[in-house]
Amino acid sequence: MTAKAENAALPIEGARILIVGGASLVGSATAELLLQQGAGEVTILDNFYQGSREAIHHIEGNPRLKVVQGDVMRLPQLLAASKGVDGILHLAAVMSITMDRDPWVGLDVNIRGAQNVIEAAWIGGVKKLVFASSNAVYGYGPGIVGELMETTPFHSTDAPPAAILYGASKIIGEQLCRDAHRKFGLNYVVVRYSTVYGERQHYRAANALYIIETHDRVRAGQRPQVIGDGSETKHFVHVSDVARANVAAFASSATDIAVNISGPKPTTTLEIVQLVTELAGKSLAPEHVAPDPGKVRLTSGGAWRIDHAKAAKAIGWRPQVDMREGIRRLIAWREAAERKQVAG
Amino acid sequence: MTAKAENAALPIEGARILIVGGASLVGSATAELLLQQGAGEVTILDNFYQGSREAIHHIEGNPRLKVVQGDVMRLPQLLAASKGVDGILHLAAVMSITMDRDPWVGLDVNIRGAQNVIEAAWIGGVKKLVFASSNAVYGYGPGIVGELMETTPFHSTDAPPAAILYGASKIIGEQLCRDAHRKFGLNYVVVRYSTVYGERQHYRAANALYIIETHDRVRAGQRPQVIGDGSETKHFVHVSDVARANVAAFASSATDIAVNISGPKPTTTLEIVQLVTELAGKSLAPEHVAPDPGKVRLTSGGAWRIDHAKAAKAIGWRPQVDMREGIRRLIAWREAAERKQVAG
Repeated sequence: MTAKAENAALPIEGARILIVGGASLVGSATAELLLQQGAGEVTILDNFYQGSREAIHHIEGNPRLKVVQGDVMRLPQLLAASKGVDGILHLAAVMSITMDRDPWVGLDVNIRGAQNVIEAAWIGGVKKLVFASSNAVYGYGPGIVGELMETTPFHSTDAPPAAILYGASKIIGEQLCRDAHRKFGLNYVVVRYSTVYGERQHYRAANALYIIETHDRVRAGQRPQVIGDGSETKHFVHVSDVARANVAAFASSATDIAVNISGPKPTTTLEIVQLVTELAGKSLAPEHVAPDPGKVRLTSGGAWRIDHAKAAKAIGWRPQVDMREGIRRLIAWREAAERKQVAG
Repeated sequence: MTAKAENAALPIEGARILIVGGASLVGSATAELLLQQGAGEVTILDNFYQGSREAIHHIEGNPRLKVVQGDVMRLPQLLAASKGVDGILHLAAVMSITMDRDPWVGLDVNIRGAQNVIEAAWIGGVKKLVFASSNAVYGYGPGIVGELMETTPFHSTDAPPAAILYGASKIIGEQLCRDAHRKFGLNYVVVRYSTVYGERQHYRAANALYIIETHDRVRAGQRPQVIGDGSETKHFVHVSDVARANVAAFASSATDIAVNISGPKPTTTLEIVQLVTELAGKSLAPEHVAPDPGKVRLTSGGAWRIDHAKAAKAIGWRPQVDMREGIRRLIAWREAAERKQVAG
């Protein structure tokens, strides 16, 4: 192991970590895990445009948690929040649905936001940056088949503009990290999440939406909807596995690398719908419908799988939660949250 | 032919065309051709950051030419310049060498610049936008082999960050055009230039630099340098062919399309060096050198060719100038320019 590689490890015990865009599905789960693993201080910075207080309610009592209202577009706020920080997890981003509605805001947040975070990390002498990317860097459409490795190119033919804009903005964010590593020696790990789902799930990601939309329908006694024949591939990853990957990215000696973070195995939309229906305790036959052309739907051409062998090797991470367990947890959380609302 | 397709044709005779970033290699050649073909008014907008007065000196006397100092980052200046205009050619962009030096400026100009031009085109009711893109949307590195078609994905593994940033910024620009077409009906043609060379050649494009650097050496009596064995593929296109492609993109009924604009056939670095040496009237044997790791060099893995059959079909364009003729013209222009300088 080289000296440089050793320096790139950031042990969690006692570490001060800033999570940019942290009042979110992934941010709250990662903050919770960092606190459990003995982080000295976890600061969540969020502008609460997409993030919410509810997403971090379960950890807000922790004395080692700090919540700062701030915006990734405001460099001075990032500089203030990153003072004395050992590591930054950069999550703040606009996804395909918001990108479709407003590409100006989306590209600003995803690109200028990444530049600001990198700048703050460098100025603040931060030891390691973990940059949240996406399997969107492989693109969409009929070109996506087989094993998607970290070297797979970006396919965009016939994909919706917003999806390509999102993927390209993540490619740019990754390259800005690489550029900062080369020019200033910034240590970083890019974690390319596949579709994240789980407790505190939001309504903003085109793919993950599938699970909660289906759950909403079957709970209301409506037949679940499957687009086309339901054979389309989806590859989800449970939020708890993503949180573990973020923590592993800090703790490992890896630097200047991008790794896929995906669940145990891919599934199909039909399987998802059947699983959600079963775990919701319903016996409703799925209804096959045509895709809604007005919606940003990310269609996949054939069978594919997002390989995560590189993450196992580089940061010692493997997914633990399969779809059945993950959907069970998501449904249990939604039902508990609603009982609490009714009781309150 | 549909009504929509007919509307997308912008006949050059009498048309008012704005060229954004026009005081340049491609801009000046296109302006000259538009004026020759009877355009009613050609406005060149440039901030003269990279563009120069020398680049447009040869057409400045024309009463139908207007030159405006303005910046693609300043929407009000674009709005003013695009008032009453029928077509916009958007050329203003930062290429890989400048992108390497300053990614903040590069991404701003290439992405916010494209957004501003599209906004101005839409607000001004412009009939057609021709957006200058690049074969950089196919990326670089070992993934680049065989025929590069308009559907080829973006390869980035092992490519320099600045080259990927440049390519991704062009992908984003193209998709912003597609998005505006879908949302507001903006007619556009994306022209993906391969490496442009020719009269009024500048020193900013990593690939095109090869020709003039070689010419500089052999004129000084130094042996020309070839990187490695010289078998690397390059696919150039002469600036006069690019100008014809831009004009054809306006005049044709094509819209919502991207086409490759490349020269008759690819070549190798060794062939380029031999051709430049021969046409400069020298007999110097090339010297094989190792690549300079500090320079943004865009290496190609194997033999490839940028297919331009789609441009022939969609906008009725085919390249006319081969490498021998193009280099002959470039050398003749450099020598004439220097004679003029000496005489002046």
